[in-house]
Amino acid sequence: MKRVLTGIQSSGRPHLGNILGAILPAIELSQKIESFLFIADLHALTTLKNKDLVKKNSIETAAAWLAFGLDTSKNVLYKQSDVPQVTELMWYLNCITPYPMLANAHSFKDKSNNLSDVNAGLFTYPVLMAADIILYNADTVPVGKDQLQHLEITRDIANKFNNHFGDTFVIPEASVKKNTLIVPGTDGRKMSKSYSNTINILGSENTIKKQIMGIITDSKGLEEPKDPSNCNIFKIYKLLASDFDTEKLRLKYLSGGFGYGHAKKELFELIVKKFEKPRKRFDELMNSHERITSELKKGSEIANETANSVLKKVRQNLGLVRA
Amino acid sequence: MKRVLTGIQSSGRPHLGNILGAILPAIELSQKIESFLFIADLHALTTLKNKDLVKKNSIETAAAWLAFGLDTSKNVLYKQSDVPQVTELMWYLNCITPYPMLANAHSFKDKSNNLSDVNAGLFTYPVLMAADIILYNADTVPVGKDQLQHLEITRDIANKFNNHFGDTFVIPEASVKKNTLIVPGTDGRKMSKSYSNTINILGSENTIKKQIMGIITDSKGLEEPKDPSNCNIFKIYKLLASDFDTEKLRLKYLSGGFGYGHAKKELFELIVKKFEKPRKRFDELMNSHERITSELKKGSEIANETANSVLKKVRQNLGLVRA
Repeated sequence: MKRVLTGIQSSGRPHLGNILGAILPAIELSQKIESFLFIADLHALTTLKNKDLVKKNSIETAAAWLAFGLDTSKNVLYKQSDVPQVTELMWYLNCITPYPMLANAHSFKDKSNNLSDVNAGLFTYPVLMAADIILYNADTVPVGKDQLQHLEITRDIANKFNNHFGDTFVIPEASVKKNTLIVPGTDGRKMSKSYSNTINILGSENTIKKQIMGIITDSKGLEEPKDPSNCNIFKIYKLLASDFDTEKLRLKYLSGGFGYGHAKKELFELIVKKFEKPRKRFDELMNSHERITSELKKGSEIANETANSVLKKVRQNLGLVRA
Repeated sequence: MKRVLTGIQSSGRPHLGNILGAILPAIELSQKIESFLFIADLHALTTLKNKDLVKKNSIETAAAWLAFGLDTSKNVLYKQSDVPQVTELMWYLNCITPYPMLANAHSFKDKSNNLSDVNAGLFTYPVLMAADIILYNADTVPVGKDQLQHLEITRDIANKFNNHFGDTFVIPEASVKKNTLIVPGTDGRKMSKSYSNTINILGSENTIKKQIMGIITDSKGLEEPKDPSNCNIFKIYKLLASDFDTEKLRLKYLSGGFGYGHAKKELFELIVKKFEKPRKRFDELMNSHERITSELKKGSEIANETANSVLKKVRQNLGLVRA
C-alpha cells in the first residue's frame, strides 16, 4: 500500500502562492494516493509563541484545505499536536541521531551565525520531522529540493533503527517536486507572507481588490502598447486563466488602449470567479469551527490508531514494556 | 504541599554503593515528604541499546527500591517511559531553550571531544530532565553538586515559560545533598559498576563472598597488628556496623593475631545479617514480576494523572486545543 505524507505549514490563511504551489498539487496527489496531511503546529512552536495565533493559524489552515476540496473520506487530515506520540518517537530517535548530523544540517548551519536565536527545537527539528514521517508508515514524501537533506536524515535514522533494533519502520522515499509553481507576488518577487506581497484570495473582496490594485507595473500610459511578458499582472493572470483567455489578454496588451487598471480589473474578476466556490466554503467553515474541529478529530483518530500501532512495535523493540 | 522528585538510574541490580548512597537516603526522605520516584529508562536509552537489558534493568531497579521498603502507599514509584507525556512537554520546552544553554552545559562539554559519540538525546538530556521535574509540580529536587547546573537549567526554562505563557509550572528548588556517602569499592576507589569493584548485596551469598574475598588489602601477615584506618575492609564494615561493633573490630586490627581473612569473614557475616530482609524480599519480588509490575502500574496511574493535568494547562497556555 502506498501512503504519502505531507506536512502543512501552520501559518494561517494561505495566499494565492500557497494555494497554487502547495495546496492544489497536494490535493491532486491525494486523489490518486492515500495521503496523511498534518498541520505542523508543533513545528510552528519553534518560532511562534503566541497562543491566539497558534489557535487561529491551525483553524484557518484546516479550513483552507477543506475548502479546496481535500477528500477526508479517503485521506487523513490532522493536527500534529493531536498525535503527541510523535514526540515520544522523537525521543527514541534522538538517542540514535548523532549530534554532528544535526549540527551539519543546512537548516541549522544557516542560522549558526545567530546561535542565541536558535532554540533546541529548531536544532532538533529534523528529528521531529523524521518521527512525523516514519510514525505513519509513509513511503512517499513529496519534498522541495531544500527539504531533500531532511529526508535523507530521516532515511538514515530509520535505517539505523531498523538495523539495530530489528525491522520496525518503513523507509520513506523522497518524491522531489519538479518545477514547483513559483507564483509571483504583487511586487514581482516570489509571493510570500514575509515580503507582504501576497494576494489573499481567502480574504474579503475588498482585500483582494486592494492587493491587486497594488501590483507593481511600469508607468506606460493607457494608449501605449504593453509587454505582457514583463508584467506582474499578466504573469499572475496566466497562471489562473485558460489558454484562450490568456491569449485574449495578451492581444489587449499588445494592441494598446488597454491600461494596467483594466488588466487589474480583469485579474480581480477572474480570481473572484475562479475561486468563488472555495471562498464560499472557506467562509462557511470559518463560521462553524465545529465542522473544522470535527474533521480534525476524525483525522486525528485515524492518525492516532496508526501511530499507536507503530509505536507499540517501537517500544517492544526497545525493550520498553508498558506497566 | 511539598513534593520531592527523584530520578533513579535504571542500571539494574543496585550494589552496596547505590544502596547506601542513594536508595536508603531517598527512602528516608520519602518517609517525611511525599516523593515521586521515577526509574529513568528513557534517559538510559541515550547510552543503552539492548532490549533485554532495558527490561531487566527496570525490573531489578524497581524490585530493589521495593525490597528496601519504599512505601508506595505514600509515594509514587513509576517508570519514566510509562508517562511518555514527558516527551511532549520536552518538545515544548525545547522550543524555548536556547541552543547555547545546552551547548554550554558541563554534561555536553565533557563529551565534546568525541562529538560523534554524542547523540541528540545526550545533547538535549537537560531538557528532558527539566520536563521530568516540572511535569509533576515537584518543588524539591535532591541533587548532587554535579547535577546543580541541570537544575539551574530547569529553573531557567520553567521561569521563561511562566513569564512568556503565563503561570504554569512550579519552580523547583534544588536541595543539595551534603556529604553524600561515598562507599569505597573492593579496590578502594569509589564503588562503581564501571570499576568492577562492587559488592552486589542483592546477589547470591556466593557472589557476595567472592567479592568480599577480592577486597584489596596490604600484605601484612596474620600475627601483625594492622591499621584499620587504611583498610578497605574496615572502611566498608564501619559504614554498616554499629559503633560498638566497629570499635570491637578496630581493637582486633590493632591487637594482631587477626588476619584480613578474618576481617573479610566478619564483613560477610555482617552484610548477610544486616541485609537479610531486603535480600529475601528482593528475591521474592524477582520471582514474581507481576507484583513489581503491579506496583509500577499503580505508580504510573498516579503519575499519569498529575502529568495530564499539568500538560492540559501547558497546552491551553500554548494555544494547542485538542481536536
